[in-house]
Amino acid sequence: MKIGVVGLGLIGGSFARDLSQQSDISVAGIDANEAHCDRALELGLVKGIMTLEQAEKNCDVLIVAVPVHSIEKLIPQILDRISSDKVVIDVGSTKSSICEAVKDHPRRGRYVAAHPLAGTEFSGPEAALIGLYQGKKNIVCERDLSDDDAINMALRIFDSVGLNTIFMNAEDHDKHLAYVSHLSHVSSFMLGLTVLDIEKDEKQIFNLASTGFESTVRLAKSNPDTWAAIFQKNKKYVSGALESYIEYLQNFKTALDNDDTNTLNKYMHEANDIKRVLNK
Amino acid sequence: MKIGVVGLGLIGGSFARDLSQQSDISVAGIDANEAHCDRALELGLVKGIMTLEQAEKNCDVLIVAVPVHSIEKLIPQILDRISSDKVVIDVGSTKSSICEAVKDHPRRGRYVAAHPLAGTEFSGPEAALIGLYQGKKNIVCERDLSDDDAINMALRIFDSVGLNTIFMNAEDHDKHLAYVSHLSHVSSFMLGLTVLDIEKDEKQIFNLASTGFESTVRLAKSNPDTWAAIFQKNKKYVSGALESYIEYLQNFKTALDNDDTNTLNKYMHEANDIKRVLNK
Repeated sequence: MKIGVVGLGLIGGSFARDLSQQSDISVAGIDANEAHCDRALELGLVKGIMTLEQAEKNCDVLIVAVPVHSIEKLIPQILDRISSDKVVIDVGSTKSSICEAVKDHPRRGRYVAAHPLAGTEFSGPEAALIGLYQGKKNIVCERDLSDDDAINMALRIFDSVGLNTIFMNAEDHDKHLAYVSHLSHVSSFMLGLTVLDIEKDEKQIFNLASTGFESTVRLAKSNPDTWAAIFQKNKKYVSGALESYIEYLQNFKTALDNDDTNTLNKYMHEANDIKRVLNK
Repeated sequence: MKIGVVGLGLIGGSFARDLSQQSDISVAGIDANEAHCDRALELGLVKGIMTLEQAEKNCDVLIVAVPVHSIEKLIPQILDRISSDKVVIDVGSTKSSICEAVKDHPRRGRYVAAHPLAGTEFSGPEAALIGLYQGKKNIVCERDLSDDDAINMALRIFDSVGLNTIFMNAEDHDKHLAYVSHLSHVSSFMLGLTVLDIEKDEKQIFNLASTGFESTVRLAKSNPDTWAAIFQKNKKYVSGALESYIEYLQNFKTALDNDDTNTLNKYMHEANDIKRVLNK
């Protein structure tokens, strides 16, 4: 089977790495950025590079791993051009607007909307990791709108890299992810900015940064282009999540300013419940 | 040398563990919570338990590792009672109010104000770790107000567990730590609360939580009593840090709501600089 991976960054590159190791699969890389193509070849993520047009003709499956605003434009164009025996999978972090963009496409059935919950704060071909997806969750949306053979092919690929797939509608996906992933990124980006803004003497940040700070600020190292697209494509829910978050922070600050120890303690005890939820 | 560790939680317990392994040191544990004393003995953190009064008489050095509001009350009382050849060190996360509480004490010179930048989100004797302090930074405040022999004794102890000590005044310490540590904790506690509040179906949190969420929310598992005291004792700077943080979040939300991609990108690119700062 020939698989074309469109977008050779962290997510696409990691798929390419894992899939290349399977004897029955040959992987081609596609990326508009030539430097990424060269780097992907050097790093051995892929054995060959194709143009998108070549990949649409020669590959059985395309995995699209570009920023979400590009996915939304690209998937309908790919579906326009491919023959009806091909499968197109996207692995972007938002799903509603992408699913919306293809919902009336005559070849909608050939498309599978997916989101593997895996990644790091790094980006580009160098960030691609073997085994990134091993044991991670994967969400497939609007399963019923994909043809059975397309879903089965996608699941075979996801299973082969160790992903555990669950199914969800696109709207629910975007809402949950706004809270459980996207909000974390905003919170971390703004934490980094706040600290950089006040600590003009960078040596002090470096000197004083504890492991606590490093873990909460880690996501502030993430790729701005990737995340601007995600936040904007999931604007409704990310904005709502941010509103709740800001309100809690404001309430906490008010309790602190008013020496209201009971409220501070109540909030923190309630937040502690995340321990039980995450460990179960 | 006999060292008494007052407070057998994560911080005190880890000191006890490391110091107990040194052949020239015997460590006694002191804790108002009897269950903590029993557990510390069972876990082998300490070989013996003393009352505070016994420790003040029998130990050469006392390391005080209780919540910061208790430290502030306890240090002057201990200084009242000890002979002038003893050394009292506190290892709390705020320094100004503690230094203020003892600044006019006739035995101020016997006291060393310190803050090792180490810890985890866990608490109690079970959380104590061997090697917690290895390679970590330690801040000693108001060095000039401590007697030379007291500072030297404290440094000898800190060096022996692998801490690298730097010196700072207490006000600067509290200001920097508000940004580089305390704000991270508030941000994480409130992130946990926001997500728990919206995600009434806890299974979805568990299912969808990616490593990004787990790292930003990790500190929300921290001990509320410890942190309520820290936030309140460093109220001025924590409140100021929170104000800046909320303002950035609000600006980010406004940019998102207004489809202002340039501002979103600008903020995230600036925040990315934390990568360079933390790695240098």
